[in-house]
Amino acid sequence: MKITHYNEILPVTMNNDLVKDVAGRVLIGQEEGAPNFCMRFFEMGPGGYTPKHTHDWEHEVFVHQGNGEVFVDAKWHPLSPGSAIFVPPNVVHQFKNTSEKIFTFICLVPSKAPEL
Amino acid sequence: MKITHYNEILPVTMNNDLVKDVAGRVLIGQEEGAPNFCMRFFEMGPGGYTPKHTHDWEHEVFVHQGNGEVFVDAKWHPLSPGSAIFVPPNVVHQFKNTSEKIFTFICLVPSKAPEL
Repeated sequence: MKITHYNEILPVTMNNDLVKDVAGRVLIGQEEGAPNFCMRFFEMGPGGYTPKHTHDWEHEVFVHQGNGEVFVDAKWHPLSPGSAIFVPPNVVHQFKNTSEKIFTFICLVPSKAPEL
Repeated sequence: MKITHYNEILPVTMNNDLVKDVAGRVLIGQEEGAPNFCMRFFEMGPGGYTPKHTHDWEHEVFVHQGNGEVFVDAKWHPLSPGSAIFVPPNVVHQFKNTSEKIFTFICLVPSKAPEL
């Protein structure tokens, strides 16, 4: 059993050629003994984005705060708090913050995927 | 691929001897072809609660809005927006709304579990 809050976990910040102003945290994963899937929490600053990439595992995403967009099927789609996104395996995708505030979402992956 | 918002999905309301004022929705599951786990969204009215029960699959929960509590390990623990809860298989648990506003959270289960 684990009860936590995302702000109790130190974030890992990501800034390179492919990722801008993203902070990630593993909320529930191998360390807790999660047997099937892993819950990560991401914060993205204004103008921030995740890599445009693909991999052979799925994402299940839920938007917690702020406004952004997701790129799938060759176009951008608006997201707001309460949006849910299923990205199947092997589908190109990217997330970006389109607002002036922090954009946060959780993103779950199966246990076979890297946790962060 | 699916992009939705929880308010675009008709809720299933639950009210009986074990559950009070709970509305559930499947956001991502078998219908979308999710291969490993299922994302559900729950709203709970003031005074509402889920059943106190146990089952042989895990929960990964993230609190979206409002304030409530979870019962695990024989006591109640406070929850607020941004709280994450891992309930391992075969652990007794219950959620309740302790506020005067709606309490909402997502709760993920592996594909072998009932979706709702």
